[in-house]
Amino acid sequence: MKKQHISEAVIRRLPRYYRYLDDLHNKGVIRISSNSLGSKMGITASQIRQDLSCFGEFGQQGYGYNVKELRGEIGRILGIDKKHTIIIVGVGNLGHALMQNFHFAQNGFSLEAAFDVSPALIGSEINGVLVRDLEELDAYCRASIPDVAVLTVPQSVAQQTVDRLVDLGVRGFWNFTNREVTSEHPDVRFESVHFADSLLTLSYHISRQ
Amino acid sequence: MKKQHISEAVIRRLPRYYRYLDDLHNKGVIRISSNSLGSKMGITASQIRQDLSCFGEFGQQGYGYNVKELRGEIGRILGIDKKHTIIIVGVGNLGHALMQNFHFAQNGFSLEAAFDVSPALIGSEINGVLVRDLEELDAYCRASIPDVAVLTVPQSVAQQTVDRLVDLGVRGFWNFTNREVTSEHPDVRFESVHFADSLLTLSYHISRQ
Repeated sequence: MKKQHISEAVIRRLPRYYRYLDDLHNKGVIRISSNSLGSKMGITASQIRQDLSCFGEFGQQGYGYNVKELRGEIGRILGIDKKHTIIIVGVGNLGHALMQNFHFAQNGFSLEAAFDVSPALIGSEINGVLVRDLEELDAYCRASIPDVAVLTVPQSVAQQTVDRLVDLGVRGFWNFTNREVTSEHPDVRFESVHFADSLLTLSYHISRQ
Repeated sequence: MKKQHISEAVIRRLPRYYRYLDDLHNKGVIRISSNSLGSKMGITASQIRQDLSCFGEFGQQGYGYNVKELRGEIGRILGIDKKHTIIIVGVGNLGHALMQNFHFAQNGFSLEAAFDVSPALIGSEINGVLVRDLEELDAYCRASIPDVAVLTVPQSVAQQTVDRLVDLGVRGFWNFTNREVTSEHPDVRFESVHFADSLLTLSYHISRQ
């Protein structure tokens, strides 16, 4: 892989490439041209070629891309083969929905545990994963530090939960609290899902019709 | 507002601008320079000036932006003042989480109703919104067509739910099913929330540490 600065915009398009290629692969498609892939994805063929060129040589002029190979390559670039470990902190409706429906394994993550404060939930299993008492979090992380914590706690405790987890050694956060959380630790990465950003994009478009 | 083609990338940044400006406004900040706003948002000042220039003249050289005014302008561009109506189709964990925690009104949407097939849910109220029998959907839409339907149904019925709603006149879809849904109707807009895209972006970054 070339060593160069990859822009955040390119990185954010990679999961979309992966998703489309995975879908094509599952449909039995063997090869695809950058033109056809672009028209499916609503981007230009030259954008695709430019994005992928950041990571090396893919495809052959006139032959298109081998779907399975390119999917595999992009998957590796995204770290899907790394088997990252992940825990869920906060098993309200959203945490519950993720445990029930989100395909962690397909995305290269092993969901190891969930934590909550509710006695009604502690000790139960959701989709084969044990919900533990939040009080056990420190001991749990001391035994094995998860790569990522999913933040599905109430907003009021979002930052303090981050601080506690960073102290315990967690460096990746998938933040659903719709609250900006921060850390002074240089290696900590936050990825936030902002539902409102998505709905407002739709609002923009339907306001113009 | 200037009439010109606005790229999807710019449109997708608008909700972020709105979010940051709203936050600044709530903190009592009156003015902000494109430099400070850019450093908060992790983008360059010139990107901000360029993005906003698509929509008209904002701010004054050397004086920065009036936070409240710019927030208002971007809100109007996004259609937040339009009071769009929205319904939720599928009140599983995710639908439930959105009803309980998502601030529809703050984003210019009025959540009018929710629909599900489960007898245990039908007739209940969540956060003041009635859960109706999915069988009532047709009659409901005939009386008043919602601007947007939130798709939180199982994947297996995602496309048929879209088809039914499009037939009933719904033109905006906020899709949480992680399934690509389509319509041949030219005015229909889909906005999909792909949790995996977000997690894989995080995966990319933590794989490189």
